[in-house]
Amino acid sequence: MIIVMKVGSPQEEIDRISEEMCGRGLTPEKIVGKHKVVIGLVGETAALDPLQMQEISPWIEQVLRVEQPFKRASLEFRHGQPTDVAIETPDGAVHIGQNHPVVTIAGPCSVENEEMIVATAQYVKASGAKLLRGGAYKPRTSPYAFQGHGESALGLLAAAREATGLGIITEVMDAEDLDKIVEVADVVQVGARNMQNFSLLKKVGAQPKPVFLKRGMSATIEEWLMAAEYIMAAGNPNVILCERGIRTFDRQYARNTLDLSVIPVLRSLTHLPIAIDPSHGTGRAEYVPSMAMAAIAAGADSLMIEVHPNPAKALSDGPQSLTPQRFDRLMQELSVIGRAVGRWQPPVVALT
Amino acid sequence: MIIVMKVGSPQEEIDRISEEMCGRGLTPEKIVGKHKVVIGLVGETAALDPLQMQEISPWIEQVLRVEQPFKRASLEFRHGQPTDVAIETPDGAVHIGQNHPVVTIAGPCSVENEEMIVATAQYVKASGAKLLRGGAYKPRTSPYAFQGHGESALGLLAAAREATGLGIITEVMDAEDLDKIVEVADVVQVGARNMQNFSLLKKVGAQPKPVFLKRGMSATIEEWLMAAEYIMAAGNPNVILCERGIRTFDRQYARNTLDLSVIPVLRSLTHLPIAIDPSHGTGRAEYVPSMAMAAIAAGADSLMIEVHPNPAKALSDGPQSLTPQRFDRLMQELSVIGRAVGRWQPPVVALT
Amino acid sequence: MIIVMKVGSPQEEIDRISEEMCGRGLTPEKIVGKHKVVIGLVGETAALDPLQMQEISPWIEQVLRVEQPFKRASLEFRHGQPTDVAIETPDGAVHIGQNHPVVTIAGPCSVENEEMIVATAQYVKASGAKLLRGGAYKPRTSPYAFQGHGESALGLLAAAREATGLGIITEVMDAEDLDKIVEVADVVQVGARNMQNFSLLKKVGAQPKPVFLKRGMSATIEEWLMAAEYIMAAGNPNVILCERGIRTFDRQYARNTLDLSVIPVLRSLTHLPIAIDPSHGTGRAEYVPSMAMAAIAAGADSLMIEVHPNPAKALSDGPQSLTPQRFDRLMQELSVIGRAVGRWQPPVVALT
Amino acid sequence: MIIVMKVGSPQEEIDRISEEMCGRGLTPEKIVGKHKVVIGLVGETAALDPLQMQEISPWIEQVLRVEQPFKRASLEFRHGQPTDVAIETPDGAVHIGQNHPVVTIAGPCSVENEEMIVATAQYVKASGAKLLRGGAYKPRTSPYAFQGHGESALGLLAAAREATGLGIITEVMDAEDLDKIVEVADVVQVGARNMQNFSLLKKVGAQPKPVFLKRGMSATIEEWLMAAEYIMAAGNPNVILCERGIRTFDRQYARNTLDLSVIPVLRSLTHLPIAIDPSHGTGRAEYVPSMAMAAIAAGADSLMIEVHPNPAKALSDGPQSLTPQRFDRLMQELSVIGRAVGRWQPPVVALT
Repeated sequence: MIIVMKVGSPQEEIDRISEEMCGRGLTPEKIVGKHKVVIGLVGETAALDPLQMQEISPWIEQVLRVEQPFKRASLEFRHGQPTDVAIETPDGAVHIGQNHPVVTIAGPCSVENEEMIVATAQYVKASGAKLLRGGAYKPRTSPYAFQGHGESALGLLAAAREATGLGIITEVMDAEDLDKIVEVADVVQVGARNMQNFSLLKKVGAQPKPVFLKRGMSATIEEWLMAAEYIMAAGNPNVILCERGIRTFDRQYARNTLDLSVIPVLRSLTHLPIAIDPSHGTGRAEYVPSMAMAAIAAGADSLMIEVHPNPAKALSDGPQSLTPQRFDRLMQELSVIGRAVGRWQPPVVALT
Repeated sequence: MIIVMKVGSPQEEIDRISEEMCGRGLTPEKIVGKHKVVIGLVGETAALDPLQMQEISPWIEQVLRVEQPFKRASLEFRHGQPTDVAIETPDGAVHIGQNHPVVTIAGPCSVENEEMIVATAQYVKASGAKLLRGGAYKPRTSPYAFQGHGESALGLLAAAREATGLGIITEVMDAEDLDKIVEVADVVQVGARNMQNFSLLKKVGAQPKPVFLKRGMSATIEEWLMAAEYIMAAGNPNVILCERGIRTFDRQYARNTLDLSVIPVLRSLTHLPIAIDPSHGTGRAEYVPSMAMAAIAAGADSLMIEVHPNPAKALSDGPQSLTPQRFDRLMQELSVIGRAVGRWQPPVVALT
Repeated sequence: MIIVMKVGSPQEEIDRISEEMCGRGLTPEKIVGKHKVVIGLVGETAALDPLQMQEISPWIEQVLRVEQPFKRASLEFRHGQPTDVAIETPDGAVHIGQNHPVVTIAGPCSVENEEMIVATAQYVKASGAKLLRGGAYKPRTSPYAFQGHGESALGLLAAAREATGLGIITEVMDAEDLDKIVEVADVVQVGARNMQNFSLLKKVGAQPKPVFLKRGMSATIEEWLMAAEYIMAAGNPNVILCERGIRTFDRQYARNTLDLSVIPVLRSLTHLPIAIDPSHGTGRAEYVPSMAMAAIAAGADSLMIEVHPNPAKALSDGPQSLTPQRFDRLMQELSVIGRAVGRWQPPVVALT
Repeated sequence: MIIVMKVGSPQEEIDRISEEMCGRGLTPEKIVGKHKVVIGLVGETAALDPLQMQEISPWIEQVLRVEQPFKRASLEFRHGQPTDVAIETPDGAVHIGQNHPVVTIAGPCSVENEEMIVATAQYVKASGAKLLRGGAYKPRTSPYAFQGHGESALGLLAAAREATGLGIITEVMDAEDLDKIVEVADVVQVGARNMQNFSLLKKVGAQPKPVFLKRGMSATIEEWLMAAEYIMAAGNPNVILCERGIRTFDRQYARNTLDLSVIPVLRSLTHLPIAIDPSHGTGRAEYVPSMAMAAIAAGADSLMIEVHPNPAKALSDGPQSLTPQRFDRLMQELSVIGRAVGRWQPPVVALT
C-alpha cells in the first residue's frame, strides 16, 4: 500500500502518519521528492481499506493498493501450481483442474420427479457428463414461482446418483439445509445471488465437500476471489469458480452477458479451477452451443449445461435447457474442440 | 400476458396453445389479424415467466408481460394509499410514510464500544434523528476485515436505546441471529448483498418488526419490489425500501451511483415508504450533504446517514461518515429544504 | 505518476527505466525500501497512459496515476474560482455559474414549425426560462425516424429569438453545419452521442459561442472532463457540463439513470458550471418534476427541461415533454427550493 | 406493434386511436377481450417509437414492439442468406462471411513511420493475415496524447499495401477526411466512439468501400444494428460488424468486457459478417490469445488483432499489442481451432 501526501504536507503530519502505521504493525518507508512525499507500507495490508486509510489525515492525497487483497486464492499461494479438485463419485474420482480433461456437468434446473431426474442422468451420462446437476432448493425472483421440491428432491438426486454412478452437485440457499445437502451432494453449489452471503460462505467453508462458487451478477473479479477466500479461510481449499453471466446494459436478447474473458484473467490471478455455465450465461438454449465451444477453446476446466427431457414443460428455466438429443450432439461438437486443445477424455465404451 | 404468434402459424397450434393455457387456469383471448394472431391471457399470470412461456411452441414469436409481477407491493394493492410504517420506540411511535415528516436515521457503520455508541446516539438525537443505526454483524468483502462485534454489540445497542429513547435499526446477515436481533431492534435491516437471499427474506417476513430492505447493488426496481413481495407474502406488510447506490461503469470518485430517480419511479408503482442512504450511496462524506438535500427535495420519506464521532478511527466505512458536528449542521440545512416541501418536523425543545 | 517495481527488480532495470523517463522530460525520484522500489515521476504526465507505461519493462508491477489527466478543466486551473459563463441574448447577458441564480433552459425536443416554436418560446419565457432549446438536427437511433428540419429550423429559432428575446441553444451533429448554427445559436450543444467525437470537439472549441457539453451515456466523469478539455485546449473556455442520464442495467421504467451525484463530485474537481437535464435523464414527463427539484437542492447551476405544446403530437421525445401548463407549475415548485438554497432569481414583471 | 388499452377504456377513445393510426398509414386491428382491448398495428412501424406512441392517449397502458426496428440488416431481408463482403486487395479479393475461412486483420494501433508499418505488414502477412490495420487518425481520450500522423500516415499505408499486397483498413474520424481515406483504404473503419455519429454513418454509407463498424462501448445490439442500418439505408450493403468489448462495472483487470455472446445472437438476427477484436476487447496482450481462440470456436468470421514490432515503444495501445513472434505463434494455435470448425484457409507457400 502506498500513501501519497499532498504537496506541502507538514513534516509533523508525515511523522504522525508513519507512527500510526507502526502502531498498526506496518513498516512505513518514506520517499522524499522535490514536490511530493510518498509513504510505502510493508506488512499485512490485505485487510486495510484504502478509502479508510485516507481518513487518517487531511494531508493524504491518495492511498493506493499495490498488493492483491486475496491470499489463499492467489496464484502465489500455491507458487503457480493449479489446484486439482477431486470429487468422489460412485464411478470414482472426477478431477477438475488445469491438468485434466474438461469435465461436463449436466442436468435439469430443478429436480421434478424421480423418473425425470433418473432418465436425465442416464442421458447425460451416456453423452459423457461426469456430474449431475439438479436443484432441490431454487432461488426464484417471485415468491409465487416454483421454489423447488426441497428435501424430497435430495432423495431423488441420491437415487439418480445410485442409478448412474454420477456425482451430484446441488445448490444450498439456506445454511439450515446444509447438513442434509452434504449427505447427498458430492459438490455444494453457492448460487450467484448468495455469492456475498458471507455467513453462508463461512459455513460451506467449514464442511468437507468441494464448493462450486458462482459469480454474482455484478461481482467484480476481485470480489469473487474474496468470496472464494472466505470459503478457503474457513478451511475448505476446494473451490471451483463458475462464471454464469454478468449483468450489463443490454438484456434484450441474451439474459446475461457471459464473460468469457474471466478465463485468461483468472488464470493470471488464481490457482482455482474455472467453470463456465453458458445456460444461465445466455438464458437461451440456441446460444448455448456456440458459447460452450468458445469456453473450451478459451481454456475452461469445466462446463455446466442445463439439460431437460422436455424443456417446454420444465418447472423452471426451460428456455435455456437443451434436450438430451441436442446435448448429445453438442458433446460431439465439443469433443472436436476439446481434442484440438488437448483437453478431452476419450469416451468409455457405453452400455446404454 | 400476450402471446404473439409467428406469421403463418397453423390453426391447430394456436388451438393447442389456447387449450394449454386453459389447463393452467388462464382465459385465452384470440385476435386474428390479416398477418398475425395474438393470444391475450387473462388470470393469475404473476408467477409466469415470459421466456418460459415461449418454449410452449416454436410458433410463438414473443411473449409479453403486460401486468406487473408484484401484487402486495403494488400501488393498486392499497388502492393508491401509501403505507405508514409505525416503529415503536421508547420515545413513542415513529412514522415513516408519505404523509409524515421525513425521518432521519443516523449512527455509525458498526457498533464499536458502549461509550462510542451511546455518545453517538446522544449526538444524533440532539440533532433531530429519530432512529439509531449501528451494525452488530457487518458484511465485509474481506474475511480478514473486522466483522462486527456480533451479539455483544446488540447489548450495546440496547443500552443506547435505553439511554436516549431512540429506536434501533440493525442488520441481520444470518437467519440464526434473527431472534436475538428482533429482541433489541425496532427495525430489522436486510443489506444490499442479501436482497435476493430468499431464505432470509421469508424469515424476516415471518417476524413482527418492520423491515428496512436495501436495494441490491445491481437489482432492478422490479427485482427489488419482488424482494419486498417475498417479505410481504410471508406475512409482514411493514417494508421500507432503501436505495443505497447502484453499481455502474464509473466508480472512480463515488463508490456507487446513488439512484435518486427511484423516488418518482417507486411512487408510481408502490405504496411502500422510500428511504435514501447517501452515505453508502456515494461512499464519501463530502458528497453526502448535497445528496441528502436532493433526496428530500425529490420526495424521500426517510434518510439514513452515517455518523461517527471520529471517522478517521472508525473500524469500518469511516470515509463516508460525518462527524456529529457536520451532521448537526446538515440537519439544519436539511430543515430548510424539508420545510420548503412541507415535510419537516418542528424541533422539540431538547434537554440534552 | 508512480511506478511500482516488482520484488527483486535488478538495479540495472531500475536505472534503465529512470533514464528512459528522463529522456521523456520527466524527473524520476526513487524510493528504495526493504522489499520494494518505487519510482515517482514529476513533470508533464497528463498525456501518459499508465497501461502504456507498464510496457516499458517486465519488472514493472503497476503504474499508478496520482495526478488528474485534465488541466484546464481542473479546479486548480482557476485556483478554485468557479467559471461564470456569460451568454449574450437579446434580453441581455444570462450568467450560468455557481455565483448566479439557477438558469432554466426550456423548449421542445425538435423545432417543428414557426408557430409552434414561437408559441413555446413565449410560454417558457413567461414561466421564467432564460434560454430556448430546440433541435434543428436530431440524432435518432433509426434512419427512418424524423431527423429534424435542419437548416430551415435554424431560421425558425432565429424568429423565436427575435420574438421573445430568449437566447437560443441548439445541437450540432455535423461540423459542416457549425457555421450556420453559430450564426443563430447563443450556445452550441454537443450531444451525448458525440461527446467523444473528438473532431467535432476541436471544432466547437475553435468557435466563440459557449458550448453545452452533454455527458455520454456511458462516459466516466474523467472522460467527460477530458472532452471538456478538448474544447478548452482548442481555445474556448466557456463549457457547461450537462448530465442527461447514464446507461445502467435497469431501463424498464426510466429510460436512463439520472446521475445527480455528479453535482458534488464535479464541484470537487472542476470550476465549470453544471446543468442537469431531467427530461432525457428519465425519459418520462411524470418523473421530471421530482428530479428537477432534487437537482436544484443538490446545487445544479442550470436545468434543461423539455416543453412541448402538445406532447402527444410531438415529432420526437413526446413522452418526456411537459406541457406549458405543467412547466409553469413546475417553475413555481422549483422557486420554493431555489429560494430555500438562495439560488432563485426574483421574477421580473412580465409584459407577455 | 401492439397497443394495450387500460381496463375500462371508453369505446370512443379506442376508435379515436384507431383512426389516428389509419391517418399514419397503419392498419389497426382490434381485439376485444372480456377485460382488455388490444390494438394490433400492421404496416410500416419501424420508425415508430413505442414510448412516443404511448402519449397518444392516457388510456393506453403499454405499447409493445413486436417487429424489429431494423430491416436491411435483418436476416429476413436476405431470406436467411449470409452476406459475403468481398474486399479488393492487390493480392485479390478477400471474402468475409459465414461461408468463408476466418479472415485475420492485423497491424499496429497507429502508423508510426514507413519502416515500421511496412515491416509489420510483412510480418503479419507471413503469418497469414489478409488485411493490414493501422490508424492514421486516432481517437484519444486526452487532447494532449498522440493523435495519429493523419494524412501522411495514409501515404505510408499505401506504401505498405504496395509492398505486401495486403488490403488496408483504417479509421475515419472526420467526414472531411473521408475522400482521402477512401483513396487508400480497402475497408473504412468507424470506431466505437462514432458508432452513433449519424452524420458520419450516412457519409460512409454513400461511399463504395466496405465499412467495418465497431460496436459502441455501451451500444445495445439493437442500436448497433440500427447503426448498420444507417449505412445500408445510405446505399452501402457491405457492413462488417466488429465487437470490441463493452463497458461494464468491472474494469480492474480487463479494460473492457469482450462480449463473445454477440456471435450467436447476431447470427439469429442478421446476415452481416461478424468480426471480433480481442485486443481492444481486453486491453491486455496476455488475454488476447485465449479470446481469439474462443472467437473462432464461437463462429466469428474475422479477427482483428493488434501487432506491433516493439509494444513497449508504441505511440498508442502498446499494452494490448502482440509482438510479431507472438502473433505468428497465435496464428498456428488458431489454425488448430480454425481447422476443427472447418473455417481455416490452407497456408500458401510463403516466399518471405
